[in-house]
Amino acid sequence: MTQPNDLLPEGLEDRLPLEAARITAMMRACLDVLDAHGYDRVRPPLLEFEASLAGRMAGAVAGEARAMFRFVDPASLRTLALRSDMTPQVGRIAATSLKTAARPLRLAYCGDTVVIKASQLDPARERLQLGAELIGSDSVAAASEAVMLAVDALTAAGLTGISVDFTLPDLVDTLSAKAFPLSDGQIEAVRRELDTKDAGGLKAAGGAAYLPLLYATGPFETALAALRDVDAGGALKSRLDGLEAIAAHIGDAARITLDPTERHGFEYQSWFGFTLYAEGLRRAAGRGGTYRIAGSDEAATGFTLYLDRLADAAPQPEAARTCYLPLGHDRAAAAKLRAEGWRTRAQLAEGEDAPALRCGYILTATGPVELEQP
Amino acid sequence: MTQPNDLLPEGLEDRLPLEAARITAMMRACLDVLDAHGYDRVRPPLLEFEASLAGRMAGAVAGEARAMFRFVDPASLRTLALRSDMTPQVGRIAATSLKTAARPLRLAYCGDTVVIKASQLDPARERLQLGAELIGSDSVAAASEAVMLAVDALTAAGLTGISVDFTLPDLVDTLSAKAFPLSDGQIEAVRRELDTKDAGGLKAAGGAAYLPLLYATGPFETALAALRDVDAGGALKSRLDGLEAIAAHIGDAARITLDPTERHGFEYQSWFGFTLYAEGLRRAAGRGGTYRIAGSDEAATGFTLYLDRLADAAPQPEAARTCYLPLGHDRAAAAKLRAEGWRTRAQLAEGEDAPALRCGYILTATGPVELEQP
Repeated sequence: MTQPNDLLPEGLEDRLPLEAARITAMMRACLDVLDAHGYDRVRPPLLEFEASLAGRMAGAVAGEARAMFRFVDPASLRTLALRSDMTPQVGRIAATSLKTAARPLRLAYCGDTVVIKASQLDPARERLQLGAELIGSDSVAAASEAVMLAVDALTAAGLTGISVDFTLPDLVDTLSAKAFPLSDGQIEAVRRELDTKDAGGLKAAGGAAYLPLLYATGPFETALAALRDVDAGGALKSRLDGLEAIAAHIGDAARITLDPTERHGFEYQSWFGFTLYAEGLRRAAGRGGTYRIAGSDEAATGFTLYLDRLADAAPQPEAARTCYLPLGHDRAAAAKLRAEGWRTRAQLAEGEDAPALRCGYILTATGPVELEQP
Repeated sequence: MTQPNDLLPEGLEDRLPLEAARITAMMRACLDVLDAHGYDRVRPPLLEFEASLAGRMAGAVAGEARAMFRFVDPASLRTLALRSDMTPQVGRIAATSLKTAARPLRLAYCGDTVVIKASQLDPARERLQLGAELIGSDSVAAASEAVMLAVDALTAAGLTGISVDFTLPDLVDTLSAKAFPLSDGQIEAVRRELDTKDAGGLKAAGGAAYLPLLYATGPFETALAALRDVDAGGALKSRLDGLEAIAAHIGDAARITLDPTERHGFEYQSWFGFTLYAEGLRRAAGRGGTYRIAGSDEAATGFTLYLDRLADAAPQPEAARTCYLPLGHDRAAAAKLRAEGWRTRAQLAEGEDAPALRCGYILTATGPVELEQP
């Protein structure tokens, strides 16, 4: 739980010890999973030239680049921006400093990001973003690895009831180019009506052929079968085979659903997108997909989790036993306790209240002795 | 080593995998030391109201509050600042959300900070600040704990040749009030000449009595003895006894020096300040001391390390063995390797070059087999 605090601007909060401990534990667990799968962490800076950062977000969600705090840098007299997303920074590193590194290149990142304006759905303006990018591939194998890795990371973070919702971000482009032709003017209208899942609007927009897509949604197996029925001409075949392979790769590790027309936030992605959910969370736990890096146009696959927004659903790490060290205690004995995993708090002055300092034990000549709790 | 990069503003850098791994390892090691000594981590936000943050830095280093990036918040129409120091944030938390928590209150923090203007000595504008604050005490016992904790943290981070330079930030105030009176106009001039260690200037400023202080500097024992000689009237006695107790507490864990007139950066501190050094670092590794929290005026003791500036002197964490997982590999065997501490990188497509992907082993039916390196 975060603490409301009039002293802080809207959407910015202190994370106090219990919540901070959950976030730190989740971060370590997730980063360890990414590291074990060969993802090397990079640390880009909080600030960049606005033109550079916005340029690398060119293909991103509409409004995302506008969402950054900006200010003039007295050193360069150029406009800087505070990052709202670390993905473009990782793309920049892959395209510059790590341009000659062998592909596929696996990079991990974790850091604070800030948006200038909160959304109605999510009042937080600061977000602790953690993610992995697989650079040099947007294949089914890459997508399978990214989804599995995201599920493994959430599981390691202690989340349960994990589900993954698959989508096909370029569905309308693909179908309109082949099976169900639309004029240029119609494409945007059909996309919009599919977004709002409005059957009447869809027909009125000239997208009657797209109506069955609205019903090819839900649990993966049945939704995929419905989508295969719609795709009699086979325009979607390679994509649907891909989804099936990814789902097979995930197996029982997560529940899988399909919502082929879901497009919100996936505008910059290519053939595959996914959203992660977990028990106890009102919002998505994260999202990812295949895309092309803005600027270098290299194929890539990745995902992002917002750790601080998962903190309410994560388990509280077990607190270590805490031993109070009275004045004049045996320092070697205290060091030994810490080496064994205890926490210690040393007495500084007479009159302290060890239980109030959350110490369950006190160090004596014969070792730690449990304190009576008040 | 950081990579120079024309794409980034002056003083802002990407940390690429090797350096990022050193920083991450140092951060975990230091945070684990603070946690073991009973310090609870808090996570304040990157941005705050400028008036609130600057107000809590009121007693701080001249110019520090001016060093923050500022911008208008469209949500509140108030000025926000990007933090340049996390200490005032921890002081705010102690004085508000944790006002009723038992004292001494031990808090730890770690996060990115940014200054608007680099100094000549240190071109970095972004710094990863890690620290501990012991709130509710500025006693000798508190100072002893803070210095020992800082030394333990640097040692755990892998740094060697650690030394600590003690100083007495309020030395001139104390002496001028008792032993060696100065007029109000003289005090600032004497401080300035002591800062620059200018014997002639000190005499000219009316501070001839302070001349011996310039020579009471160097290895702790001899400098302390010289300082006791200067302090014939005993105005400094309680402070000097304190320094001796702190030094005794540190013992052989670090080399100790004394520079009683060193004041740069300690203007906001009360009776005790210290600077940390380590082998292989051109700049200080960190600093700390006793102070009063601006706003609440509560006594406190703490220290700060800038982890990214220590990264060059920190050892490279041993790289885990990395095993290449060919297409169609046994996934359970791969998971077992990871559980045993291996890293794995999975093949995504034909034609990949496992050694170029920095894999020293390949998974076969009989387990990992070492690959010939090119």
